[in-house]
Amino acid sequence: MKKPLDYTLIKKDIRSKARRGAITTPHGTVQTPMFMPVGTLATVKFLSPEDLYKIGSQVILSNTYHLWLRPGEHIVKQAGGLHKFMNYDGPILTDSGGFQVFSLSQIRKIEEEGVAFRNHLNGDKLFLSPEKAIQIQNDLGADIIMSFDECPPYPATYEYMKDSVERTLRWAKRGQLAHQRPDDQALFGIVQGGSFTELRHHSAKSLVEMDFPGYSIGGTSVGEPKEVMYKMIDDAIEFLPEDKPRYLMGVGSVDAIFEGVLRGVDMFDCVLPTRIARHGAAMTTQGRVNIKNNKFAEDFTPLDPACDCEACQNYTKAYLRHLIRCNEGLGMRLLSIHNLRFLLKLMEDIRLAIEEDRLLELRDQVYEAYELHETKSGF
Amino acid sequence: MKKPLDYTLIKKDIRSKARRGAITTPHGTVQTPMFMPVGTLATVKFLSPEDLYKIGSQVILSNTYHLWLRPGEHIVKQAGGLHKFMNYDGPILTDSGGFQVFSLSQIRKIEEEGVAFRNHLNGDKLFLSPEKAIQIQNDLGADIIMSFDECPPYPATYEYMKDSVERTLRWAKRGQLAHQRPDDQALFGIVQGGSFTELRHHSAKSLVEMDFPGYSIGGTSVGEPKEVMYKMIDDAIEFLPEDKPRYLMGVGSVDAIFEGVLRGVDMFDCVLPTRIARHGAAMTTQGRVNIKNNKFAEDFTPLDPACDCEACQNYTKAYLRHLIRCNEGLGMRLLSIHNLRFLLKLMEDIRLAIEEDRLLELRDQVYEAYELHETKSGF
Repeated sequence: MKKPLDYTLIKKDIRSKARRGAITTPHGTVQTPMFMPVGTLATVKFLSPEDLYKIGSQVILSNTYHLWLRPGEHIVKQAGGLHKFMNYDGPILTDSGGFQVFSLSQIRKIEEEGVAFRNHLNGDKLFLSPEKAIQIQNDLGADIIMSFDECPPYPATYEYMKDSVERTLRWAKRGQLAHQRPDDQALFGIVQGGSFTELRHHSAKSLVEMDFPGYSIGGTSVGEPKEVMYKMIDDAIEFLPEDKPRYLMGVGSVDAIFEGVLRGVDMFDCVLPTRIARHGAAMTTQGRVNIKNNKFAEDFTPLDPACDCEACQNYTKAYLRHLIRCNEGLGMRLLSIHNLRFLLKLMEDIRLAIEEDRLLELRDQVYEAYELHETKSGF
Repeated sequence: MKKPLDYTLIKKDIRSKARRGAITTPHGTVQTPMFMPVGTLATVKFLSPEDLYKIGSQVILSNTYHLWLRPGEHIVKQAGGLHKFMNYDGPILTDSGGFQVFSLSQIRKIEEEGVAFRNHLNGDKLFLSPEKAIQIQNDLGADIIMSFDECPPYPATYEYMKDSVERTLRWAKRGQLAHQRPDDQALFGIVQGGSFTELRHHSAKSLVEMDFPGYSIGGTSVGEPKEVMYKMIDDAIEFLPEDKPRYLMGVGSVDAIFEGVLRGVDMFDCVLPTRIARHGAAMTTQGRVNIKNNKFAEDFTPLDPACDCEACQNYTKAYLRHLIRCNEGLGMRLLSIHNLRFLLKLMEDIRLAIEEDRLLELRDQVYEAYELHETKSGF
């Protein structure tokens, strides 16, 4: 059997669990740790693939649930898969749809077989199972795909979480058996277990026994305090093998990225940078900027003088403010480009800092700019 | 005095009044006849200047009324003018604001001095006069600017139109006197007169006496039948000098462009190509296409195989349909790029056809594709 994914460990940080690596996929090799822009409906909102290449995007993420509903996975399959459908030539990752089933649909019923729910667009009855989630992802054809899991809210009781973890493990096994393209699509197992160390350990060990080409950490960023999330990451990673990539799902704030990297996470994604961009919030080397603020009305300097993106190189704060205030698509596109470039550049800096043994120093510098002192963890 | 604009007549069509020319502005020389994309709020919706250069955009148009309200002309002036504010290095044209005052505001009072009205955003009382319209345009700093005019609806009585034309002529004179940058901004006079030949002639002759560097034809496309519009154009142009450009305001349908070119029009603009694009309508060499149509769900061919734009070169109808159905900004951007490229390419074809004495043949070909036989005029 051909391997669909290969993780190479390039360097370990001397003072933390951070690691510099590379992941090889059927659509090229990418450098880790990395941030993955989210393209929910087979488009990173307002950006073209050309825009993504320019800002140094590597893997992008797309959502199985959303593509299942629109346009339908059969259409993407007929197009020749997601890469051809959206014309993106880099690696693509799809999630399993589980998170959306639990976060977007009001009515749902979790059974051993799967989850019955009504879709968020027109209320139609739908049923998603581990096998269905894999079939859809096989049709979409992403390089990296996810097991179907339950993502319980925080807090949950130990009893509920234990049952959920066991069921999610059975679902992971069923997904693995249903997977039709193990040669060119890497199926990741997802570590769950909420805030319970024992359950996180059990989930991780059981998945490792099933031998996935990579492991995700799920069930974080669901309302828990940051320190709890950091402990969840520690607990999830403790028993994961060194030669496989680790993906912290749905996390992309600056401090959570640093704390994740310091704990050995390789992959991050988050919809926040592009979502807040569309409302005028920019992530900059000087911290968060709300471009709609009156004080920028006559500010003819760049959004972030340290940034090399299209928005910062060609336009002023005054112009960007004007565009966002007028709900102009160009403004949303430029701020989305900027926020993604900010995070992609941050990851480039993090990778270099690991190589040069100065990751903690970089973390301190960035936290100072962001005034994030209070959230610094043990490292 | 330096001339702000220079029109060079390159070739006259042998079978019509069409003319191939060039207009030199402080921001470069452009080829006519030409179509000018509309960038209402200092942005052609969803497109960057880079996108505009790529599709062969020459002059773009921006709206004085909208920029007066947001961000305010003082901010654009402080930025160094519209070119710097929006980072567009080609020629820019601004209208006078008159059309928007008459079309967007509900409450208005026309006086000799100007027009009192309430703005369409928050209902604030405003007053626009010929002098104010020129002052705003002087601050915006476009290469080509417009006289403040009244644009009466169709139909209007002869008596109303006569009074209006006379007032608009007095306004044109006042604007000319108020113009503070005659060396680097070309102020056009606007021929009005509705459907009355005598008034169109009177308006044109009077403006020519005032000696403007270019002349616009206003008061068309306000509800009149197409044959009436074509006659308005004939009547307006009859007494315009050969050595000055003629601009047919707000007109950009394929047939109206041909009919205008055949009558000697050099410049066109219209918001329609970008507006319909955002709703999924594409102008193609095979006629109008509604991309939302179900029949394109599994159509993996380009929108227009004959088109060289980013949308047609990189994406399928199925993907564009998906994007537009999901209200994705990338879809609106790609269809806007396509429709503008379609019209800019059409103008390139028209210019070449004039040079090669086959304009009527081109017109017939294009009409056939668009099924526009019935609207063909005398030529």
